[in-house]
Amino acid sequence: MAQRLFFGVDVGGTFTKIALVDEKSRLLAKSKFSSEGFSNKAFFAKTLRANILSILSEHKLALRHLKGIGIGLPGPVDFDKGIVLSLTNIKGWNRFPLSAYLRRYFSVPVFIDNDANCMGLAESRLGAARGTSYALCLTLGTGVGGALILDRQIYRSSYFLSAEVGHIPVVLDGPKCSCGGRGCLERFVGNRALLSAARRVFKKDMSLEEVSCLAAKGDLRALKIWRDAGNIIGLAVSGVLNVFNPEIVVIGGGVAEAGDALFASIRRTVTCHAMEQLKKYVKVKKAALGNDAGVLGAALLAKEQVGIRV
Amino acid sequence: MAQRLFFGVDVGGTFTKIALVDEKSRLLAKSKFSSEGFSNKAFFAKTLRANILSILSEHKLALRHLKGIGIGLPGPVDFDKGIVLSLTNIKGWNRFPLSAYLRRYFSVPVFIDNDANCMGLAESRLGAARGTSYALCLTLGTGVGGALILDRQIYRSSYFLSAEVGHIPVVLDGPKCSCGGRGCLERFVGNRALLSAARRVFKKDMSLEEVSCLAAKGDLRALKIWRDAGNIIGLAVSGVLNVFNPEIVVIGGGVAEAGDALFASIRRTVTCHAMEQLKKYVKVKKAALGNDAGVLGAALLAKEQVGIRV
Repeated sequence: MAQRLFFGVDVGGTFTKIALVDEKSRLLAKSKFSSEGFSNKAFFAKTLRANILSILSEHKLALRHLKGIGIGLPGPVDFDKGIVLSLTNIKGWNRFPLSAYLRRYFSVPVFIDNDANCMGLAESRLGAARGTSYALCLTLGTGVGGALILDRQIYRSSYFLSAEVGHIPVVLDGPKCSCGGRGCLERFVGNRALLSAARRVFKKDMSLEEVSCLAAKGDLRALKIWRDAGNIIGLAVSGVLNVFNPEIVVIGGGVAEAGDALFASIRRTVTCHAMEQLKKYVKVKKAALGNDAGVLGAALLAKEQVGIRV
Repeated sequence: MAQRLFFGVDVGGTFTKIALVDEKSRLLAKSKFSSEGFSNKAFFAKTLRANILSILSEHKLALRHLKGIGIGLPGPVDFDKGIVLSLTNIKGWNRFPLSAYLRRYFSVPVFIDNDANCMGLAESRLGAARGTSYALCLTLGTGVGGALILDRQIYRSSYFLSAEVGHIPVVLDGPKCSCGGRGCLERFVGNRALLSAARRVFKKDMSLEEVSCLAAKGDLRALKIWRDAGNIIGLAVSGVLNVFNPEIVVIGGGVAEAGDALFASIRRTVTCHAMEQLKKYVKVKKAALGNDAGVLGAALLAKEQVGIRV
């Protein structure tokens, strides 16, 4: 069986996920392991290798079929040089030439990118934005990440950031943000901001799942939390729409699980603020790949970088 | 003299400007004529031809050296097909295949683009953004136009708009805008909005030049008008910065003549809202080419489209 295989790796602060994908972008297997101890780079490389070998052997596949590895990371990376620029969740990886380092362990090309870019790539190829050429992808979670797909390619600037939609300022001189800016979207619709909004409204700690449940039952306070969040997401998204005119906006991440209450509000705000030419066409869709988007995108990155575009 | 020449044309509602540029992007000559009667397309073509021939003969240049014509228009165009989609200032040009039409009059390739894109191209090649690969260009006038230069190329989406920075919404559910959206930047810092702000503050009609004069003399009310405008421009620009990460923001158009009072406020707001990685590097500069940017950019468009990149 002369197939060509790719591993996608999604390195998170708590867990690292991996997925095996074939040259037709089919997901063959996936697994997940703790990210503990990954400050030690050799330990990370060995753990990754052990997990990759274990999946291959489980599926009776040989290492020689592996043609590339893609890695998504929660921080800025120098994609061209394969260097991790900074990671907040794993210490000691700043300015670390991860691609070159791992290449010695695997003898195949290793590509790294920002995790939001990987998710955007996966949604663009296999998910909600499939078939489009220009897409804006958002991930709503603890942070609010973004990726732009321009002419089917991930947009990368010279500053090694992804399209940081979460750091669009929505309020002049607003609250300070960890990014160095102020009044960023993330400060209003990131997990933490939504949890504290819920706490303020319900006078007790609530999970976002509980807020969504209440909203689904018609609780006006819960609905207002999602409506407010949708308004502010819609406002920021409309600005990107009018500047960059994507065909579709794909929204994923844990917070997107809020579902209709949130999406109806986002859509209403986008319809209100997008230019006439755009509001007729642009779609706002929920991400389709869920938790697999990150690993899948990382694998697709490797696959496409070695020249396979099936 | 085997030189290759290009004409740039900037079609405005009141005047149309033309400029003759050689293959080294040197401006050889320019002129300006009324746009009256241009609803009649044959009249437009003949007027343009007469003006082009007159400039050529004045400079003892032959028509056979003309290798292309670029045209900037105040509305959306289908660049690839050379079709004007709509023009508000000149009637009857909607869905008009201008490139094909003019080609019959000139026997050289004719390229058309949005005027904001032409200005952006000129500033990118010869003006304030020269030497950069990623730039955001704004023109502040009656309308607020924008252009994105990504990897040295004008960004064009599939919707035939330029990067409509003037239509970034800055206020949720804000005042209606002619674009079909609401709360757009243009509604707050377009000429008309600034003039009415001045009228409110000074209780009489004032030109923006007068407001600038007063600001230069330290008048606090005039300074506040520019500071407020700069704040809101800076907010919208910061959003684009954090998503696209250009190296430079170039701001031109009549309103940019307000100078320091306006630019200091824009820079302060950008420094406040841009991400740490960006605020250290990104420059906010005044456009360098003034009123020539439009025609120059149109000529450069033609020059580059026929394959000359000197």
